[in-house]
Amino acid sequence: MRHTSALMTASPRQRRSFGRWLISAEGWPYMLVPLIPAAVVLELAHASATAIFVAAALGIIPTAALMGKATEELAARSGPGVGGFLNVTFGNFPELVIAFFALIEGLQEVVKASLIGSIIGNILLVLGASMFIGGLRRDKQTFNRAAANAQSAMLLLALTALIMPAVFELVVGGRLPLPDEELVRYDSTVEHLSLAVAIVLMLSYVAGLIFSLRTHRALFNPHSEHAEEADWSVRKGIIALAVAGIAVGLMSEILVGSISEAGESLGLSEFFIGAIVVAIVGNAAEHWVAVLVAKKDKMDLAVGICLGSSTQIALFVAPLLVILSFPFGPEPMPLVFNGFELAAIVFAILIADRVTAEGESNWFEGVQLLAVYVVVALAFAFA
Amino acid sequence: MRHTSALMTASPRQRRSFGRWLISAEGWPYMLVPLIPAAVVLELAHASATAIFVAAALGIIPTAALMGKATEELAARSGPGVGGFLNVTFGNFPELVIAFFALIEGLQEVVKASLIGSIIGNILLVLGASMFIGGLRRDKQTFNRAAANAQSAMLLLALTALIMPAVFELVVGGRLPLPDEELVRYDSTVEHLSLAVAIVLMLSYVAGLIFSLRTHRALFNPHSEHAEEADWSVRKGIIALAVAGIAVGLMSEILVGSISEAGESLGLSEFFIGAIVVAIVGNAAEHWVAVLVAKKDKMDLAVGICLGSSTQIALFVAPLLVILSFPFGPEPMPLVFNGFELAAIVFAILIADRVTAEGESNWFEGVQLLAVYVVVALAFAFA
Amino acid sequence: MRHTSALMTASPRQRRSFGRWLISAEGWPYMLVPLIPAAVVLELAHASATAIFVAAALGIIPTAALMGKATEELAARSGPGVGGFLNVTFGNFPELVIAFFALIEGLQEVVKASLIGSIIGNILLVLGASMFIGGLRRDKQTFNRAAANAQSAMLLLALTALIMPAVFELVVGGRLPLPDEELVRYDSTVEHLSLAVAIVLMLSYVAGLIFSLRTHRALFNPHSEHAEEADWSVRKGIIALAVAGIAVGLMSEILVGSISEAGESLGLSEFFIGAIVVAIVGNAAEHWVAVLVAKKDKMDLAVGICLGSSTQIALFVAPLLVILSFPFGPEPMPLVFNGFELAAIVFAILIADRVTAEGESNWFEGVQLLAVYVVVALAFAFA
Repeated sequence: MRHTSALMTASPRQRRSFGRWLISAEGWPYMLVPLIPAAVVLELAHASATAIFVAAALGIIPTAALMGKATEELAARSGPGVGGFLNVTFGNFPELVIAFFALIEGLQEVVKASLIGSIIGNILLVLGASMFIGGLRRDKQTFNRAAANAQSAMLLLALTALIMPAVFELVVGGRLPLPDEELVRYDSTVEHLSLAVAIVLMLSYVAGLIFSLRTHRALFNPHSEHAEEADWSVRKGIIALAVAGIAVGLMSEILVGSISEAGESLGLSEFFIGAIVVAIVGNAAEHWVAVLVAKKDKMDLAVGICLGSSTQIALFVAPLLVILSFPFGPEPMPLVFNGFELAAIVFAILIADRVTAEGESNWFEGVQLLAVYVVVALAFAFA
Repeated sequence: MRHTSALMTASPRQRRSFGRWLISAEGWPYMLVPLIPAAVVLELAHASATAIFVAAALGIIPTAALMGKATEELAARSGPGVGGFLNVTFGNFPELVIAFFALIEGLQEVVKASLIGSIIGNILLVLGASMFIGGLRRDKQTFNRAAANAQSAMLLLALTALIMPAVFELVVGGRLPLPDEELVRYDSTVEHLSLAVAIVLMLSYVAGLIFSLRTHRALFNPHSEHAEEADWSVRKGIIALAVAGIAVGLMSEILVGSISEAGESLGLSEFFIGAIVVAIVGNAAEHWVAVLVAKKDKMDLAVGICLGSSTQIALFVAPLLVILSFPFGPEPMPLVFNGFELAAIVFAILIADRVTAEGESNWFEGVQLLAVYVVVALAFAFA
Repeated sequence: MRHTSALMTASPRQRRSFGRWLISAEGWPYMLVPLIPAAVVLELAHASATAIFVAAALGIIPTAALMGKATEELAARSGPGVGGFLNVTFGNFPELVIAFFALIEGLQEVVKASLIGSIIGNILLVLGASMFIGGLRRDKQTFNRAAANAQSAMLLLALTALIMPAVFELVVGGRLPLPDEELVRYDSTVEHLSLAVAIVLMLSYVAGLIFSLRTHRALFNPHSEHAEEADWSVRKGIIALAVAGIAVGLMSEILVGSISEAGESLGLSEFFIGAIVVAIVGNAAEHWVAVLVAKKDKMDLAVGICLGSSTQIALFVAPLLVILSFPFGPEPMPLVFNGFELAAIVFAILIADRVTAEGESNWFEGVQLLAVYVVVALAFAFA
């Protein structure tokens, strides 16, 4: 990146060095940069879904690489807590925007499915893959137990909050939405309850930020003595993350569009596409970063990304969408999930909590998280 | 207290010292003692609800102060396990009496709501407030992990026991009671199941007492070497606790009466008043003690009071009321809770278990417990 | 055993030594060996249920003793992980065979009840009894925390997998089977979902074996330096386990037959007999082994047997029966459990996970597990 941005004004000698970097282990993903504009052009030209898919899928690789590099640089400078937080924030921002537009179009149930899909994708699929890949050929990997515990306690809190409106709907209304419904008309009581719960969640998230970035910053960023390892300035890292975030969002959106079309023609339900396919494809870049750093045995960062992304979605993105749905949606979006979503999130959070409680992981724990993800995805597929 | 009881026969010099003590940080609450008889008089004279409320709310302060002092003295002498146990026993006794009379009047569903309210009030509201207040300006607080684990395992056992009759009713009867029902007619099978379950719970509680006060007493009372810090004899401490318990029960009962009236006129449901308002107001004194000792960094005692009070209600008070409801109630009171109560207790216990597992706390864990309490209270309010 | 097999060719001196051994603390159970053929003869002669019951119940004692001895010898030689694994494998094999034949006869709901009964029997009744008996007169017992955690995480995974088809059936089909149904006709979708889930479970189990017997073998078998304590060769231990397994299976089958008859005449439901009585009686030998080694403070082995047996049933036996039910059963057996079974397994696994998390136990934890078992059994009895 240092090279790319300086390319216009580079001397011949600098260009040679850039060429060598481009074919290095770290540089090769950037050879795929031209596929980013290509994907956009193909999308605008309404090219075949396959062509769009291939271009966007390849185009996501350099953006993910940039995101990974920037995250590692920031983590080296400010610690894994801050690095992970910036990574998930820039990674989740495009998701928030996409979900907001879906909300305006009245796709409330689809938005909820994708929120649940993101949460379980992060704590089962990505954390599972990180622990599995990272744990291969290692006896065990260790990570910051206190930080992981604080985050998984936040997930337990979110779990209660995400479930109480469904309990209300089930007890008072007598039923939950079904997975094949697109827009359900809820009673205004459960809508107000959801609004109040959403506000509590957002306040807790703010408290969590004060805790992890302020009063207990050292707990989450124990290795700040490694700051000298960083090549980039914090400013450069954040700009790179922002640029990568936008590019990732764009590629994800194009990718998701082409995949959804393909999925529907394959007979996959909208629910499965929303909760599983979109969640995997739309988060591909972040997922790659987590697995990559896990492989380098930076488990603090990997666990921080997975749990941090889930907590941000559960305690910030989801509540924010609920709040925004009141003024902007054709209908409010109460936090009433269907039975599949509820079961998935309950078990995902309980298991993630259990697996991270010790501050240690091995490949088999990764396999178990992945197996739970497969079981949940199977249930969603048959729903 | 040493001063108050000795006041009649005091020499002028002692009286001066008593005056100084009364305006000290520790003594000022006792200036409010005259409001205790005042509240009783106002109640008997059917004065305005506001006047009764103010008198009783102020009158509860000296009783709470006495209870706190006696608990700390007993804990200093016999260890936090014994001190906490005596505190919760004298604190829960008036609740048991009040609930028993409600039972006789046929208010079975209200009694169950107040039991659940007491349990979640202790493990979410009070423990949360203790961890929050105690954690401010401290990096972390530590407490006896083994003791906390034994008690939260008891809560998990109680959870199973409190839920199985509801499962029975749901599977066999096809429905659960609704939050706005006052007295539900259950099948005799679920009543007998509840009776059997209640007996198992009480036996487990007795086993728990043998464990914590006999075979593993040292585990729960590790700091008995601090006995020299105690000013009071054990006898004096217990008498003070008993006196305070009776006064607290009286003030609570008057307070709850005036609050319930006010709540109903505010449009709050009987369920919300029973499970939230009464639980907060009726336990105000105990709550204050827990927060107070947490602030002094005596977390062993604070956690012991919160978890000890919940386990005592779940494994002793609730089962005892079930058993008593057979000979004395117009109807037996089976342990069939409504959907809100079930969800609240499941998440409260799972989260409390998680948060106390490490034997460490910080202000943010307090915030999380409080947030869960708010979410549950919101759901109850909308029910 | 060394003596028994060598008896035919023994010199008078050897016979004297055999006689002394037979009346020793370790040898007396083998005096009951003649009751094994006696039970078979009585069964074939259709003798009275009482006579069959007494003979089989006494006949199971020497087989359990042999199984215990062989397990301890194998554990001494290869470590508690391998010893426990061999014990549960030979112990569960007869159960698999019996369940398979019940499946062919269309007793799908009974088979599922007995699977759940085995799982909760192991993790509540047997683990509880082991912790209780082992903990008496000891301050605490310790066991391999890492191994226990790996196994209880497997149980959490299994829990998700065993519940998702029921969630499917409940959400899509609107109901769960009732405890008094024998054969329910399910939709083919939930049958296919169950098949897919069963395959995931079996693959996870294989991964678990690779983990515990291969890549992290040392974690599960830390004390292999005690190999010199072993009297028997591995070969001899395995043969003894296999012989004992067959004899235990035979006795259990006879015992279960006579008990079921007695139970029905006592008015016990088929569900209670399947999930509680058969699970206790049919696993009596394994249970005895676990309690026996716990008493000798070999908690690694006791916990390994209890958790290992549950995980083997949940992740191997149950899925295998589901798979076999497709080609061999009159109907497939989907993993749709009734409400009682679901509640029992959720709480059993959550509590077992909690109690084993610390790697320590005491008598009171045993009491709590036993109390949960009693509560569950009561609910099953009233169902």
